[in-house]
Amino acid sequence: MRALWLEGRALRLRDDLPTPVPQPGEALVRVRIAGICNTDLELVRGYYPYAGVPGHEFVGTVEQASGAPEWIGRRVAGEINAACGACPPCHAGHRSHCEKRTVLGIVARDGAFASHLRLPIVNLHAVPEALSDDVAVFTEPTAAALELQQQVRVAAGDHVVVIGAGKLGHLVAQTLAMTGCRLLVVGRSPRPLALLAARGIATATADGIEPRQADLAVECTGHPDGLELARRAVRPRGTIVLKSTYHGKPEVDLARFVVDEITLVGSRCGPFPPALALLASGRVDPRALVEARYPLANALTAFDHAARPGAMKVLVDC
Amino acid sequence: MRALWLEGRALRLRDDLPTPVPQPGEALVRVRIAGICNTDLELVRGYYPYAGVPGHEFVGTVEQASGAPEWIGRRVAGEINAACGACPPCHAGHRSHCEKRTVLGIVARDGAFASHLRLPIVNLHAVPEALSDDVAVFTEPTAAALELQQQVRVAAGDHVVVIGAGKLGHLVAQTLAMTGCRLLVVGRSPRPLALLAARGIATATADGIEPRQADLAVECTGHPDGLELARRAVRPRGTIVLKSTYHGKPEVDLARFVVDEITLVGSRCGPFPPALALLASGRVDPRALVEARYPLANALTAFDHAARPGAMKVLVDC
Repeated sequence: MRALWLEGRALRLRDDLPTPVPQPGEALVRVRIAGICNTDLELVRGYYPYAGVPGHEFVGTVEQASGAPEWIGRRVAGEINAACGACPPCHAGHRSHCEKRTVLGIVARDGAFASHLRLPIVNLHAVPEALSDDVAVFTEPTAAALELQQQVRVAAGDHVVVIGAGKLGHLVAQTLAMTGCRLLVVGRSPRPLALLAARGIATATADGIEPRQADLAVECTGHPDGLELARRAVRPRGTIVLKSTYHGKPEVDLARFVVDEITLVGSRCGPFPPALALLASGRVDPRALVEARYPLANALTAFDHAARPGAMKVLVDC
Repeated sequence: MRALWLEGRALRLRDDLPTPVPQPGEALVRVRIAGICNTDLELVRGYYPYAGVPGHEFVGTVEQASGAPEWIGRRVAGEINAACGACPPCHAGHRSHCEKRTVLGIVARDGAFASHLRLPIVNLHAVPEALSDDVAVFTEPTAAALELQQQVRVAAGDHVVVIGAGKLGHLVAQTLAMTGCRLLVVGRSPRPLALLAARGIATATADGIEPRQADLAVECTGHPDGLELARRAVRPRGTIVLKSTYHGKPEVDLARFVVDEITLVGSRCGPFPPALALLASGRVDPRALVEARYPLANALTAFDHAARPGAMKVLVDC
């Protein structure tokens, strides 16, 4: 099959890869569209060691489903953590923290920039008819945005600041706006801020942060500067959610976390069913985030495009 | 009056200081005993800028009480944050986070290594008759230990690891042991670990940490190594409480906090009434922690003693 292939930091298109063979309990999915995420760009930059097909945001059609023929032909999104089901985190219901997990396009499992991928059937979620592929491909990042509300209670009237108006920051902002919180999104580039303003979401540059006022700050940049802005925004006893991964080990002013009794919460993958429901209802609408689309044959160009500073979502038709 | 005086990093005994004059709403307290805390040692090392009388753990007797004569003659412990009562944190009930606070012996308010100190009357708590001075002087650090249970729910059976078996770690361990959690205290020196073992609390050196098993890890060392041990101990989705202040800006592996969805909670001053009740009932018993006591005239020697590696609590009779 055709797929993007990452090895070292070299990304190349290959036509010589075998189509994946689903294991017991797995499905073979023909990928329809895959989205480029910052994590993909970081993999290419070598921040995590990974060799294989990248890509974890996708919508596809099931072609084979071992022991579950009712899935065949269904359009699906898929949770990216393939869990063992037997370790302590799996038993505790935290399958995304499985000790033996593989992760689609990230850890020991070929991903979505390919004609086909394989995933456990238990990871699949049927995409409602009304949901276009271009929207359904945002299920995974929308679920990730929703994860923080599984971890931290956000109430109407809470003062919330989102740091970063990129792809993830935008989805985080849309999902937070539904809570009735007082929301401010802080970003650098005018264009993504304008997209948010068009949805009625307040925006500002870093200068617009009122120091020590926010109940909650959500860091969506993955840069130490963003964490510092979040710390500046949050009130004593407030909460900072880290929604982006970081490379290296940033210096952190831990004394301030103690003196101000700040809570810092790391946040990763989230729940697919509410993400699909919100996308289907239109209450979360990612369409304005799509900046470009390329066929899989031009996926290298797609990655170059996605790596431009300030680029929003780039899709790959697989 | 006689007092210890810190200026730059120079600590000296002075006999030429005026006795404090209580402001409206304040009491004048004759200090009976004061305890040396790691924060005091850090002030002397210059980690925070402070000029004045250090000391914030004390038991004393009220000599003057502006407008509240019923306090005169009472033995008291005192909360260390003097709040304005008018700013947003004060209005939210978080007086210890007052934007304009002074802090006894730490921020712009002369402290307890003196014959007298002044504090707002609202900060005072009467010490029950049955409680000896030597125990009552532990009210402030016991309250600080209890603070984490105001912030994080600890349930019977939870797997909890305390990093550090020093003065604070010991009190944290005693207060956590009451919850019925499965408790392990990790330390270096045999003597403090033996004190804990004598109370039936399980202890280990760092090698004894089972990786990624603890629901909660409490960092009581104030060293980046301690935070790294806490991170190693805690399970995915677990919680780390920072109970010690840090100097400098340690490097923190934030990516792991995101991937493992760890929550980090800074924790500082705590509630006095339950601390006094637990000390009065004997359920928390700090007596074994007292390593030495000195008169105020020998307070410089007391500080040298307290700064020895592995030293436990040193008291100063004021």
